[in-house]
Amino acid sequence: MPASVSFSRSCPIPLGKYPHVLMAHGGGGRLMHQLIDQMFLPAFGSNPDWNHDAARLELPHGRMAFTTDSYVVSPLFFPGGDIGSMAVYGTVNDLSMAGAKPLYLSVSFILEEGLSMDTLWRVVQSIQQAAVQASVQVVTGDTKVVDRGKGDGLYINTAGVGIIDHPWTIGPRSVQPGDAILLSGDIGRHGIAIMAQREGLEFETTLESDLAPVADAVQALLEKGIEIHCLRDLTRGGLATALNEIATTAQLDLQLDSAIPITEAVEGACEILGLDPLYLANEGRFIAFVPADEADAAIAILQTYAPDSALPAQQIGTVEASTLQTEFSSGVVKQYTTIGGNRILDYRNVDQLPRIC
Amino acid sequence: MPASVSFSRSCPIPLGKYPHVLMAHGGGGRLMHQLIDQMFLPAFGSNPDWNHDAARLELPHGRMAFTTDSYVVSPLFFPGGDIGSMAVYGTVNDLSMAGAKPLYLSVSFILEEGLSMDTLWRVVQSIQQAAVQASVQVVTGDTKVVDRGKGDGLYINTAGVGIIDHPWTIGPRSVQPGDAILLSGDIGRHGIAIMAQREGLEFETTLESDLAPVADAVQALLEKGIEIHCLRDLTRGGLATALNEIATTAQLDLQLDSAIPITEAVEGACEILGLDPLYLANEGRFIAFVPADEADAAIAILQTYAPDSALPAQQIGTVEASTLQTEFSSGVVKQYTTIGGNRILDYRNVDQLPRIC
Repeated sequence: MPASVSFSRSCPIPLGKYPHVLMAHGGGGRLMHQLIDQMFLPAFGSNPDWNHDAARLELPHGRMAFTTDSYVVSPLFFPGGDIGSMAVYGTVNDLSMAGAKPLYLSVSFILEEGLSMDTLWRVVQSIQQAAVQASVQVVTGDTKVVDRGKGDGLYINTAGVGIIDHPWTIGPRSVQPGDAILLSGDIGRHGIAIMAQREGLEFETTLESDLAPVADAVQALLEKGIEIHCLRDLTRGGLATALNEIATTAQLDLQLDSAIPITEAVEGACEILGLDPLYLANEGRFIAFVPADEADAAIAILQTYAPDSALPAQQIGTVEASTLQTEFSSGVVKQYTTIGGNRILDYRNVDQLPRIC
Repeated sequence: MPASVSFSRSCPIPLGKYPHVLMAHGGGGRLMHQLIDQMFLPAFGSNPDWNHDAARLELPHGRMAFTTDSYVVSPLFFPGGDIGSMAVYGTVNDLSMAGAKPLYLSVSFILEEGLSMDTLWRVVQSIQQAAVQASVQVVTGDTKVVDRGKGDGLYINTAGVGIIDHPWTIGPRSVQPGDAILLSGDIGRHGIAIMAQREGLEFETTLESDLAPVADAVQALLEKGIEIHCLRDLTRGGLATALNEIATTAQLDLQLDSAIPITEAVEGACEILGLDPLYLANEGRFIAFVPADEADAAIAILQTYAPDSALPAQQIGTVEASTLQTEFSSGVVKQYTTIGGNRILDYRNVDQLPRIC
C-alpha cells in the first residue's frame, strides 16, 4: 500500500519566498496560519473544526479505544514508506490491536527550523494518502517549530480514536494455556530496510519495509467470529519483545516452534550485520492468540488479508502454563532450536537499532 | 494551582546506575519497560490497559471532542509551571474551548539522550498532579528517545478526549453582531514569565505564568445556562491573534475597548522589552462570546472561577458587522485608542517570543 504513495503535486506554499521552515511557522502569526490554511487543511480534509482548538466528533455508542505514538524515525524516507505513512499506520495498528475500528487521528508536527518546505509537503501528502488507505480521518492537529539543532527535520505525533463493537476483552490477561500463537506474515523487513537506508548498505534485493495497516485483517477475524484472546503488533523490539510483554502480563509460558517466517533476504542481512531477526522492528505484522480449535480458520483469514507478506501467516507456537521464572517474570518465552534444545528468548537490554519508528 | 506542585518524592529509577536517559530507554527492551513500569505506570495510574497498545474507555453517549498539542517550551521549568503541567492544562483547555468536559489524556514523550532522569521524574510528577487538578485521567502513552543534539531535553505531546453534553455549537461561526466579548482575566503573564526566565531578567515583582485549567469556569457558564457562542484560549499569538482567527472565520468585525486588563508589572516589562502585551501568550486565559444581555451574568461567573487572576474578568469589546476588508479577511479586529482613534490589530508576521508553549 505505501507503494501507491506518489509525490506529484507541487507544494502549495510558494517555495520562492519561504523554501524552508522558519520559527514563525510555529508562532501563531500569519505564516503559521498560511501553513495550516494552504497545506494542512486542504490535505487533511473536510472537518470544519480542524482549525479550532478541538475537533467535535459523533461517536457511535460503545467502548472507545484511544492511543498515541510519537514518530522519530531516521531517515524520514525509506524503502516502503516514510515518517508520514508510518505515523498513520503505526497508530491505526495500535487501535486495531485493541480490537477497535480506527476512526479518527490527530497529527502534531514538531518541525526543525530550516526544514525544507518541500520535504514537509511530501510528508503531509503521505499522511493524507495513508489516512485514505486506512479509512481514518485526520480531524485535528498542531504545529510547533524548534530552533535549528534542537530537532532532526521533523517529528510527528499521532493520536487515534476508534470504536470497539465486539464483546471480547482482547489483551494479555485473556490469553489461556493451549492458545495457538499466530503470526500474520514474514518478520524483520522494516528494521533491515531502515538500517540499510541509514547506513547506505545495498543488498542483492532491495528490502522494503513491511509498513502497512492491519485493520482489515483484524476486522475480518472479528467478523468471522474468531474468539481473539490477544493481539499485539510487532514494532520496537520485534516479535521476541512483544511475546515477552504478553508472557509477563499473562504469567504464562509461550513456546515457539523452531521455524519462524523470515525471508532469506532478511536472514542473510541479519547474518552479515549480526542482528537477531526476532528482535527486529516490523510495522505491518502482528501476533494473534486464539483457541487452538480456531487456529486453522484464523490462519486462512490472515493469509487472505496479508497480500503483501512475503511469507504466509502461520501458527508459530502455543501457550503453556508457567514453569519457569526469571528475575523479572513468572512467564517466559521459549523457542525450540533446530538441534532439539529449547532456548529462552528474554528482553534485550540494549537496542539493536535505535529510532526505527 | 501549579503553585501546589511539589517535587518531594525521590525518583523511582535508581539514579546511581542510570542517572541519564539512554537511547535504550526508547528501544523497546528492558530499560524502556523499567521506565514505564517504575515511573510512568505508578504516576499515571490505575488504568489496567496503560501498558497495552491503546486504552479502552467507556464514553457516555454523545458528542466527543478530540484535540492534540505538542509542547516544546524552553526552559522546561518557569515561574508558575513547567512543561509537564503545561502539557496537561494546555490540552484540557483546548477541550474546554469546544465546550467539552475533559476526561482522558494521552502523554507521549520525545526524550533527548542524556536528559537527567531526575528532570524527567519532576516533569512526570507535575503531569500527575496537574491531571488530578484538572480531573482528567492519563490513560495511554508513548516514549521515544532521540540522539543527543537532536532534541532539547524533552518534548511532550498530549492528546485529549472529552464529552460535549450541551446543545450549543460553540465556535466562530456562531458569533453574532452585538455579542459581548468577555476576557477571563489579566493577560500577558505567561509570555513575560517565560521570557524573563529564559533571558535571566529580573523585575521588581516576580511574574508568574497564568498557567491554569479553565474547565471549571466553562462548565459553570454552561451549567448556569449562558448561551455561549464562541470560546478561545489565548495561547500562542495572544489575545490579538485569537481575535483575528475568530474575526476571519466569522467574517465579522471585533471592536475592542481601549482598556484591556493588563497588570502594571506586565505593562512595565513590555515597555522595557519592546513587546506588545496583546500578542503575548497566556496559558490560563480565554475569551467568551455571549449575547449582550447575558454578559453581566457571565462576567459574574467568570470572576468567581478565576481566583488566581490578578485583574477581574470583564467585557473588552463588542462584535460588529464587517465594514472593512484586509488582504486576508473580511472581518477585522479594531481597538479604540485612548486618544480617540481606532486602530486595526492585525496578525503579526513575526513571532515576538518563540517556543513559549
